[in-house]
Amino acid sequence: MPNISKRALQVPISPFRKLIAIAEEAKAKGKHIYHLNIGQPDIKTPAEAIEKVQNTNIDILEYSPAVGYESYRKKMVGYYEKFDMIVQPENIIITTGASEATQLIFNACLNEGDEIVIPQPYYANYNGFAHMANVSIKPITTKIETGFALPSPEAFEAMIGPKTKGIMITNPNNPTGCLYDKETLLQLGEIVKKHDLFFFVDEVYREFCYDGQQFFSALNIKGIEDHVVVLDSISKRYSACGARIGAIVTKNEEIIKAVAKYASLRLSPPGLGQILGEALVEMDDLYLRETKNTYDRRRQVVFNRLQKMEGVTSYLPGGAFYCFARFPIESAEEFCKWLLEEFEYQGASLMLAPGNAFYAQDELGTDEVRIAYVLNEEKLEKAMDCLEQALIEYRSVMELRQATEMER
Amino acid sequence: MPNISKRALQVPISPFRKLIAIAEEAKAKGKHIYHLNIGQPDIKTPAEAIEKVQNTNIDILEYSPAVGYESYRKKMVGYYEKFDMIVQPENIIITTGASEATQLIFNACLNEGDEIVIPQPYYANYNGFAHMANVSIKPITTKIETGFALPSPEAFEAMIGPKTKGIMITNPNNPTGCLYDKETLLQLGEIVKKHDLFFFVDEVYREFCYDGQQFFSALNIKGIEDHVVVLDSISKRYSACGARIGAIVTKNEEIIKAVAKYASLRLSPPGLGQILGEALVEMDDLYLRETKNTYDRRRQVVFNRLQKMEGVTSYLPGGAFYCFARFPIESAEEFCKWLLEEFEYQGASLMLAPGNAFYAQDELGTDEVRIAYVLNEEKLEKAMDCLEQALIEYRSVMELRQATEMER
Repeated sequence: MPNISKRALQVPISPFRKLIAIAEEAKAKGKHIYHLNIGQPDIKTPAEAIEKVQNTNIDILEYSPAVGYESYRKKMVGYYEKFDMIVQPENIIITTGASEATQLIFNACLNEGDEIVIPQPYYANYNGFAHMANVSIKPITTKIETGFALPSPEAFEAMIGPKTKGIMITNPNNPTGCLYDKETLLQLGEIVKKHDLFFFVDEVYREFCYDGQQFFSALNIKGIEDHVVVLDSISKRYSACGARIGAIVTKNEEIIKAVAKYASLRLSPPGLGQILGEALVEMDDLYLRETKNTYDRRRQVVFNRLQKMEGVTSYLPGGAFYCFARFPIESAEEFCKWLLEEFEYQGASLMLAPGNAFYAQDELGTDEVRIAYVLNEEKLEKAMDCLEQALIEYRSVMELRQATEMER
Repeated sequence: MPNISKRALQVPISPFRKLIAIAEEAKAKGKHIYHLNIGQPDIKTPAEAIEKVQNTNIDILEYSPAVGYESYRKKMVGYYEKFDMIVQPENIIITTGASEATQLIFNACLNEGDEIVIPQPYYANYNGFAHMANVSIKPITTKIETGFALPSPEAFEAMIGPKTKGIMITNPNNPTGCLYDKETLLQLGEIVKKHDLFFFVDEVYREFCYDGQQFFSALNIKGIEDHVVVLDSISKRYSACGARIGAIVTKNEEIIKAVAKYASLRLSPPGLGQILGEALVEMDDLYLRETKNTYDRRRQVVFNRLQKMEGVTSYLPGGAFYCFARFPIESAEEFCKWLLEEFEYQGASLMLAPGNAFYAQDELGTDEVRIAYVLNEEKLEKAMDCLEQALIEYRSVMELRQATEMER
């Protein structure tokens, strides 16, 4: 029997995936699990858009153009305009989610061995995509104490070596919920220009900016139009993760041509998903405003509850639907496992994402967790009740364990 | 401005894509073009399955499991059973078309620098997928004179070197329409076993076997269960190319695990497409039988007409919906361009795929074309009228050109 590839053995996947099986076991035993571990919202996909797909007359579900339906790309122009992102349909390539967008852009822009600088903690699957494209991620660490603000331009520049080809950020950020403001973007733009780098910006949480803050797209930085590539997706803003529809947006024609070549190999992005995407973009903004307000309220719930828990450090996230927190524990991985296997409060427990999954170095983030506020306020309160209780119990469990070990 | 990647400049895409722009120009000038160049059928997607998707209650279009919905994979078991392919749901991973299936399997099974042997002419996009995975294709040439039958086992074995990790075939074949029978499969199985290779078999045209021939899946070869990986797609059999739903089927657990890792990175295959796939597999076989009969009649039309054209060599394809032919011309690329730019018969012309696109070496297939019989019989007859007339005219054009050149 032939061996599978070495790269398949090495490809880094989310280390917290193993918790999923444990969660399933817990649920099978009748324990209710509040899933705050994933970016799968509980918000309903807009019914009017689903209805439109369901009323569309489809005779033959043909391949779409490799870059996506022109009618859809034209409508996306109007969507981006609302964020002052002035683009043409030919600046947009529709992709199979932001996941494919990331893969396409790594292949189109980076050679094997190239490096990109990414602030950490960062979206864990970037590791896998970088591995697939044979490029390295150089992480630059941000900290909860400073609300995960980006390090100084000098610190950023110190990361840039001869192999560095780009900077990548997620704005607003997953997993930290940090929103990078215009000033921060302009500063990064200066670095990008000075070192002639690509600037990959994952803006899939664009709609979710709180406290009256304005979203500022990297596409609006003057003078680096050819450097900027925006990665996008309808998954989060319309709660349509299963549609698998994303986009690459760039004013750099060479990148568009290169991406289009790769896109032509896989023939076309999903057709039904594109019909849904087109229906979504035709909607007025009420749904998006309401969704944002919903997440905003949830954000307050999670943050307020975390604030009251002893030994917990958190910060009020400015965007997306994630909250990062430091717990008075040694190993978040162990704690998350314990939550599923051992702990129960009023018939329930919760699942969180251990923080170290979002760092390039194993030793970082070991006492941190990511909390996705993808459940309604009532459920979030109950999940926070669980968490509060769990942290108290866990301390006793740890103290007892230490005492037992010392006795030995 | 930073440069795009070297690999993007080098990635091989279908060389006949440039003809598409020329065809668009011809159509803009009012010429009707019969598109026999692509694998996009004109057959309607089953209306009852589309209707089912449209009647499905979708509250939240969530991520599906990375390997695809379990309910769908369970039903696929029943589908495969009809071809005596006895598998379990956990042997199946749902992919974003056979295109993604190919990419996933190259990454999961092959290391960089590995080689796979593929009979040529072969599906042109394999070149791009191999390039992306940094693996080499070693082509073994098959010929129209022998109906593109596979070379002897000895010839096959002569292609196998220390870096050869697998054999890949498309059965029935695109672009040749050749159906490999059980005996051929068993012979390949022997080689696969002897040299401990993977056996990747693209079976997306499984339904379309003519003249009473039975399809024999590579999954049924005894003793090499761990070597065989079947690539599948609903695109062709249900005329649902835009759904972007395919599958990887293998009894090798290690491969399943490795593919699942890569699949988890891109989170999930298209959700709406999977709902469609599930509705399709619930249907009875009437649609598939009728579709096969339709293609069979078209096949006869194309073959019979080609037979009567002077200087044309063809053969009656045993499967899929393609016919390969050799024309009395020097350059099929030039001829196909001429068809679009210069030729017109009763207000129309046709578009074919030049044969050299399907060979690894530029000098092969230069006088061959692939004809996809994806139009109805009436249109096919008219397209064949055009072709017949074109070959006559083209001869005069060529003779005149030669005479002019000799005078100089």
